[in-house]
Amino acid sequence: MKKGIFITMEGPDGSGKSTQIDLLKKYLEETGYDVLITREPGGTTISEAIREIILNKDFTAMSPVTEMLLYASARAQLINEVVGPALEEGRAVISDRFVDSSLVYQGMARGLGVDTVYEVNKLAIGKYMPDVTFLLDLPAQVGISRKKGQKELDRMELESIDFHEKVAEGYRELAKRFPERIRTIDATLPVESISSLIKDSISAIL
Amino acid sequence: MKKGIFITMEGPDGSGKSTQIDLLKKYLEETGYDVLITREPGGTTISEAIREIILNKDFTAMSPVTEMLLYASARAQLINEVVGPALEEGRAVISDRFVDSSLVYQGMARGLGVDTVYEVNKLAIGKYMPDVTFLLDLPAQVGISRKKGQKELDRMELESIDFHEKVAEGYRELAKRFPERIRTIDATLPVESISSLIKDSISAIL
Repeated sequence: MKKGIFITMEGPDGSGKSTQIDLLKKYLEETGYDVLITREPGGTTISEAIREIILNKDFTAMSPVTEMLLYASARAQLINEVVGPALEEGRAVISDRFVDSSLVYQGMARGLGVDTVYEVNKLAIGKYMPDVTFLLDLPAQVGISRKKGQKELDRMELESIDFHEKVAEGYRELAKRFPERIRTIDATLPVESISSLIKDSISAIL
Repeated sequence: MKKGIFITMEGPDGSGKSTQIDLLKKYLEETGYDVLITREPGGTTISEAIREIILNKDFTAMSPVTEMLLYASARAQLINEVVGPALEEGRAVISDRFVDSSLVYQGMARGLGVDTVYEVNKLAIGKYMPDVTFLLDLPAQVGISRKKGQKELDRMELESIDFHEKVAEGYRELAKRFPERIRTIDATLPVESISSLIKDSISAIL
């Protein structure tokens, strides 16, 4: 049986994570993997119910600690019910966002501190840290402009440009903190160029 | 301005917390307090939405860590939006359950460990620990029998008798750990006798 591999895709809103996940899925299937795609917050019935609360545009009174704990609770359920079992079965799991989003959005942009958020999230994640994380790096303004054309924005996407700048910069800091795990890719490159870089990295790991 | 006072009522399901909260509210109002009653999980729009998830009978797949983080998130919002501001205004706040419920239900009965659950909850609570907590101590079997007659049971109340025994015993252990804050009262006593003991304790504190 293949050894499971856990890959996460991170980056600001509008950085092209979904497109790259689809391309990476095809590539991994070609190498023989049974691939599971999931997203955060969500991915289980309980986690999707938590997602509804987190992204509800009416919940502007939500405190940063509440928000951080809700993300962690949805993550704990996703790991317990979906990601953990899939990895134990030797599957490849690709998650659209994971713990790094909490470290950046709540730890840095909301100011709770990376260490504090990481401690709580260790309880949610247990032994299932990603094997590799791709950071699609993009100037905040570019990402938001892309999103605005696409759909109605949720509570997080509606945050100020200042908030999104902190997120973009936070991701860069985080990549320095976890240089072994996080691979930074310029998300302004053409889709196919980004995909090639991701495939090269995965190929080197497998 | 009066100094705010934060009182929490704890004990197994069916131990008579609601009745004693009503009686204590009247007493505190007679002493001149503006009294706020709240309950956990809940007490704010966001926390009540979280409550719906926690107590949903269909969510039997919920992991202990998810459950613990959801309780903590509802608590963080309640403190931030309701309890903290009320105490700063010099009001008396009585909460039907608070952090001790998490220490007992998730820390002991679910086995996550009291220290682990306490660390996470410190983030949710900040400086607002209860001034005094009344533990209405009752054999598990008695509490559950009382509840069964009253209403449809929720996800927590539907747990096994073994679980509820752990809860009752866990509360007793917790009272030993926080002897300064937690006052244990025999909940099999008549309602008026319990109420007198509670009033005596509050009178001594004020």
